[in-house]
Amino acid sequence: MPQGQPLTVPNDGLTTRARRNTPVLAVHTGPGKGKSTAAFGMALRAWNAGMSVAVFQFVKSAKWKVGEESAFAALGKLHDEQGIGGAVEWHKMGSGWSWSRKSGSDDDHAGAAAEGWTEIAGRLAEQRHDFYVLDEFTYPLKWGWIDVDEVVDVLVNRPGGQHVVITGRDAPQRLLDAADLVTEMAKLKHPMDAGRKGQRGIEW
Amino acid sequence: MPQGQPLTVPNDGLTTRARRNTPVLAVHTGPGKGKSTAAFGMALRAWNAGMSVAVFQFVKSAKWKVGEESAFAALGKLHDEQGIGGAVEWHKMGSGWSWSRKSGSDDDHAGAAAEGWTEIAGRLAEQRHDFYVLDEFTYPLKWGWIDVDEVVDVLVNRPGGQHVVITGRDAPQRLLDAADLVTEMAKLKHPMDAGRKGQRGIEW
Repeated sequence: MPQGQPLTVPNDGLTTRARRNTPVLAVHTGPGKGKSTAAFGMALRAWNAGMSVAVFQFVKSAKWKVGEESAFAALGKLHDEQGIGGAVEWHKMGSGWSWSRKSGSDDDHAGAAAEGWTEIAGRLAEQRHDFYVLDEFTYPLKWGWIDVDEVVDVLVNRPGGQHVVITGRDAPQRLLDAADLVTEMAKLKHPMDAGRKGQRGIEW
Repeated sequence: MPQGQPLTVPNDGLTTRARRNTPVLAVHTGPGKGKSTAAFGMALRAWNAGMSVAVFQFVKSAKWKVGEESAFAALGKLHDEQGIGGAVEWHKMGSGWSWSRKSGSDDDHAGAAAEGWTEIAGRLAEQRHDFYVLDEFTYPLKWGWIDVDEVVDVLVNRPGGQHVVITGRDAPQRLLDAADLVTEMAKLKHPMDAGRKGQRGIEW
């Protein structure tokens, strides 16, 4: 794919350099595979550019996606020990966020999701990272655990050059409207439909 | 996303273990972003599972996707020096494939693409790698530089447990028919449409 030339140049008073540095809010949605995988691929690129990467997984299963977590741990170690790439933080809801002191019930998924979002909003305000992956974040939005208007407001008004990628099915329209980049992954064919099982190195 | 349960169990005489180890032929197509990025995300997961990863980029530009190449070089080094993850090879058509002795004209893209495919077919026959990314491979197929029937035949009959992911727009129907997993990336919104320029760490 050749490097894209803009079809139009907006009358926004920005120089090409400024426009080039505009942070991206991306949403990967739709029923197909590749939403999270493409987000982690983007994070890999950001890591390579020396950006500080933070992943927040709004998922319950500890097993799922452990492959990416482990690979990014290796990349974060490369940064910490050899100064290659960017710093990496990986947080998952699982049985409580890693920063949380709460030892309470694992069953309050709504509370845990809201706590995750509060933490992210705080980090965005203080510009803690350069590149955020909010993995499976559309589900707590869909289920009403986190207020969509507040999320859109925080994201649209986030300071600095922070990139944010959000994944998950059924992204709310207000989030799509606010996003700069929306890709819908459509499932044309999936091996599990043919009775295959997920396998290590492919599905996780 | 919970780990999937197959909707049906095929009457193929395979055990669950055998079915779990069935190699995948995946195609990422469609006009949206994320086709290559998701393929590299899958490669990251394969690397983490200790698979030998080989990427073949059927693109002309040396600049494009240099971020992924550099990140995978770091991962390959982790494997070679510390035994973490799998081995990584990265080949791009650019101004001649790295294995090629030809110093001839850079302008014979059709010839270079055909040479790339011949090399890949040979490696598949000898089961050289575990996980192949054939990036932007649909274009030489579309342009008639490489024969689709031959490609499908080689892929469908490839020996062992080799996974193959092919990316690019307008994948030929015969390839889609042969694939186990097809995801179409649809473009709902793209910042370049709004006159933004590509930026380091995001587009490459």
